[in-house]
Amino acid sequence: MVLYIIGLGLFDHKDITLRGLEAVKSSNRVYLENYTSILHCPHEQLEEAYGKSIELATRTDVESESDKILEGADVEDVSFLVVGDPVCATTHTDLMIRAREKGIKTRVIHNASVMGAAGSSGLHLYNFGSTVSIPFFTSGWKPQSFLDKLEFNRRGDMHTLCLLDIKVREPDFEAMTKGKTVYLPPRYMTVNQAVEQIIEVLPTRESEYKIKEGTLCVGMARLGHDDQCIKAGTLEELRGEDFGGQLHCFIVCAEEVHELEVEAVEEFFVEGSVWKKK
Amino acid sequence: MVLYIIGLGLFDHKDITLRGLEAVKSSNRVYLENYTSILHCPHEQLEEAYGKSIELATRTDVESESDKILEGADVEDVSFLVVGDPVCATTHTDLMIRAREKGIKTRVIHNASVMGAAGSSGLHLYNFGSTVSIPFFTSGWKPQSFLDKLEFNRRGDMHTLCLLDIKVREPDFEAMTKGKTVYLPPRYMTVNQAVEQIIEVLPTRESEYKIKEGTLCVGMARLGHDDQCIKAGTLEELRGEDFGGQLHCFIVCAEEVHELEVEAVEEFFVEGSVWKKK
Repeated sequence: MVLYIIGLGLFDHKDITLRGLEAVKSSNRVYLENYTSILHCPHEQLEEAYGKSIELATRTDVESESDKILEGADVEDVSFLVVGDPVCATTHTDLMIRAREKGIKTRVIHNASVMGAAGSSGLHLYNFGSTVSIPFFTSGWKPQSFLDKLEFNRRGDMHTLCLLDIKVREPDFEAMTKGKTVYLPPRYMTVNQAVEQIIEVLPTRESEYKIKEGTLCVGMARLGHDDQCIKAGTLEELRGEDFGGQLHCFIVCAEEVHELEVEAVEEFFVEGSVWKKK
Repeated sequence: MVLYIIGLGLFDHKDITLRGLEAVKSSNRVYLENYTSILHCPHEQLEEAYGKSIELATRTDVESESDKILEGADVEDVSFLVVGDPVCATTHTDLMIRAREKGIKTRVIHNASVMGAAGSSGLHLYNFGSTVSIPFFTSGWKPQSFLDKLEFNRRGDMHTLCLLDIKVREPDFEAMTKGKTVYLPPRYMTVNQAVEQIIEVLPTRESEYKIKEGTLCVGMARLGHDDQCIKAGTLEELRGEDFGGQLHCFIVCAEEVHELEVEAVEEFFVEGSVWKKK
């Protein structure tokens, strides 16, 4: 039978496709990947809508105990649910490779991902260069490799989608020293934090293609949700803008923004934006 | 009320999301964009599955007669269906801008697009640079700007997704000279044609980052379909491979391919491939 790896899209239980729902209903066991991305509704809402009980799979389950998930997938259907699209993150490749090694047939059922929905900004998706991840800085660790990539993209007149750090199930090391396993509350980087971090290290950058004060940026939150929020302006202008709850992401535009893109982005300009097309 | 712009995903009537289907059912009029991408089932199949009659919208309808589509969308729901995801192509921005100008509320319902599904290759999506389109060469017109972009991507260790030309509803100029309006049969560029074209112009390229004989490439056809076909190998190796029916697309890999990517791509190597990771 089949191991279905099913994208859930970006928002809630209604974003599954008819094909995905059909696969879930045919499955004897249904897992939800519960560690790389964030479901925006309680998983019980999925259970009720799909009429199936759903087991939450932690990183350990998927990475070390994948045999449990794959068990019996050669004689019955098993579904593995993933927020967004299964092939847009790299996390699930391993599960697919292990299934293949065991001779289990897999079928990916695609859905929307943030990498496509970034087109909601009005910027043309084919003008995006490689995607970067911005990690939370600590006092002693402020990695800048994402800025190298970003500057390379800008040199080639490409926009850069910046995915913002998520910290879930982080162990509390202080508690661990006392022999307790405690997890810190989850943290989701906001557009504002990303902007602050960039502004902090900008003086140390020397590239001619580094983000400038006047660079057009787009901040986005909760893409695909009923209350999605998109705001455009210069880096400095987005610094203090409120985007509401998680998840946020961020686009740094190319040096040159095409006229048709400007026309589409205009809708999202913050009030009084001083950004001007050259 | 709302103008819904709804992605249909990559294959057939079952790829709409529950949210999309709900919007279609609430709409008084439903249009299907029928000129930039290709629906892989007869549109009557959608009509039957969704219980709605669907009007096909040609390029002229959408670009010059959008008023007709938008008419009444302020007092009743209207749905505009798009193959793939509505914000992954640039074609529909204009309709959204016009709706905004008329004060009509719009809601995009996302879905899978080829730009996300390209991750099915096993290559990491965040390592892709800007996307290029390869046009059909004619005897006198062999534009190479796509190769400039591709080489820029390779210089930055990025893969390049190549979308392949589609010619539909092309007027037959010979018939036109006789006063008749006749359209040529549709043409869809195959991976093989794309490879042939690249090989044809390669001797004229001087970049150190140009595709070489041994460059890893991935050809893909009918992504997201039950019979999707993915094959990997060197440019030369893919030249004669059969990928079956439309639509095809093509990936030219970065100079450096990450070990985990190789492990995932391996599944798709053509028999006897000589490609070797450096």
